[in-house]
Amino acid sequence: MTETTGYSGGGFVHIKNPHLDSMEEDILYHLDLGTKTHNLPAMFGDIKFVCVGGSPNRMRAFAQFVQRELGLAGAGEELPDICAGSDRCAMYRAGPGSPSHGMGIPSISIMLHELIKLLHHAKCRDVTIIRIGTSGGLGIEAGSVVITDTAVDSSFQPRFEQVVLGDVVLRSTELDKDLAEELLACSREIADFPTLIGHTMCTYDFYEGQGRLDSALCSFSSEKKLEYLRRAYDAGVRNIEMESTAFAALCGLCGLKAAVVCVALLDRLEGDQIRASHEVLWEYQQRPQRLIAAFIRQRLGLGPKGPTH
Amino acid sequence: MTETTGYSGGGFVHIKNPHLDSMEEDILYHLDLGTKTHNLPAMFGDIKFVCVGGSPNRMRAFAQFVQRELGLAGAGEELPDICAGSDRCAMYRAGPGSPSHGMGIPSISIMLHELIKLLHHAKCRDVTIIRIGTSGGLGIEAGSVVITDTAVDSSFQPRFEQVVLGDVVLRSTELDKDLAEELLACSREIADFPTLIGHTMCTYDFYEGQGRLDSALCSFSSEKKLEYLRRAYDAGVRNIEMESTAFAALCGLCGLKAAVVCVALLDRLEGDQIRASHEVLWEYQQRPQRLIAAFIRQRLGLGPKGPTH
Repeated sequence: MTETTGYSGGGFVHIKNPHLDSMEEDILYHLDLGTKTHNLPAMFGDIKFVCVGGSPNRMRAFAQFVQRELGLAGAGEELPDICAGSDRCAMYRAGPGSPSHGMGIPSISIMLHELIKLLHHAKCRDVTIIRIGTSGGLGIEAGSVVITDTAVDSSFQPRFEQVVLGDVVLRSTELDKDLAEELLACSREIADFPTLIGHTMCTYDFYEGQGRLDSALCSFSSEKKLEYLRRAYDAGVRNIEMESTAFAALCGLCGLKAAVVCVALLDRLEGDQIRASHEVLWEYQQRPQRLIAAFIRQRLGLGPKGPTH
Repeated sequence: MTETTGYSGGGFVHIKNPHLDSMEEDILYHLDLGTKTHNLPAMFGDIKFVCVGGSPNRMRAFAQFVQRELGLAGAGEELPDICAGSDRCAMYRAGPGSPSHGMGIPSISIMLHELIKLLHHAKCRDVTIIRIGTSGGLGIEAGSVVITDTAVDSSFQPRFEQVVLGDVVLRSTELDKDLAEELLACSREIADFPTLIGHTMCTYDFYEGQGRLDSALCSFSSEKKLEYLRRAYDAGVRNIEMESTAFAALCGLCGLKAAVVCVALLDRLEGDQIRASHEVLWEYQQRPQRLIAAFIRQRLGLGPKGPTH
């Protein structure tokens, strides 16, 4: 069974669930928000950009960074975690909303279902959603930023397998091509790191699924690993992470224009362990944030800001 | 391809990876620990019980609770997060170690690979590992505690599909039967909540994969949902969560005696949303902790402790 992507009219988020209308209250459990306990349109109705990422600390830093970059009121102050009552997700607001989703498809999927319902309940329009994160690079320099054109699975196919009541449903993982090109154009403003467009492979784990030799269990040789990673490279894969296919599939079906922008922490053709210092890794992690801040500034007509260090 | 479970001799953790021995240093990236930067045998060599759970707050509370229950030095003091340099995992020590693993199979799989390597590097022996968590119940009262005998997938089969270099490898998800019975016997000490042994279904997401009607996308009727959940019940499933198959498979292959003990936050035959108050949910979440504390007391020969409230 294959489902097709349909962008909806009016710019609203497209909720494909007939049951939601008949619910008296919708509790967004992992966000610790609800339609009866919170005025979601007042809190979130003006949202245009949502950035999601795996790590709560990184998303807090990003919200503070965007607040400074866009010259918003309250810059420099501590930002409250909107989901403070939940330790499953964290969410910060700084113009755009920036929730954290933990690691892996199940974790981002929970957050996205509740986030998309939140945008629906809040009557948001024309929302752009961007996942920023970290990844392993493939044949690219550590520190490079990859803008995903298509998310692919471990067989390099542009599809996501969703289990529904025990049956597998195949979903498309296309992302918005224009948005990817717009982000690439923005990257030219920031000259001190390489940015490229490529396929992103999404796996179900970090060790065996990504062909690492340093797992607790390893049944393959270094040669077999490299042969697999080279096949991925030849199929157009430039980085590997653990959320992009589910993110692309769910956002696409719900009519959200979506992008994935991840920095590569290492080149997997060169090794498996992440050996760079905390300082270097921290600077790498800021690169997607700097690109997205430049993109939002441009969309808001604020113009380039000069060096964004 | 099927792999068999083999418990190793000497009570050591069984690392099935020939590459590890040739590595000069092993960086446990998501735990922010390493073989060169930390004296792992001194820090962890005496560990006998490891409890893992999804939520960092819950694991901190559990470590503090165990410290009180076992009458350990430092009870009542704030416990340091051993993995404070990482915001991917948190780990507390209180006699047993208790790391948090986030939500879902990819997330627990990362933590387990690094935890199992940690136990190996630290030369731990005869380790018992228990996942404590929350779940949706199936035909059981909210607040019931389920001790898993077998973890099953969304087709109710006792198997875990691990992708290795693009190929699917099937792994057994048997858990230690004697340990499950020992835990059930312990539960008789704690009379104020029901505890039972049953199958646990493990899914890749919380919404569509578990047949919830309150997702952002829903393509099935309430009748189809209930038909699926009733089939699961008839196959012996008593609760549903998102980590048990990967946990059982990986612990089994590495020779760790493992158990899964989850409280049911609701009965999924009655509904989808988690509607109980924060206070009620907090008390539910303490139930697996109380059971495990009683179990550890018994194993250590400390005898029952009376009411554990």
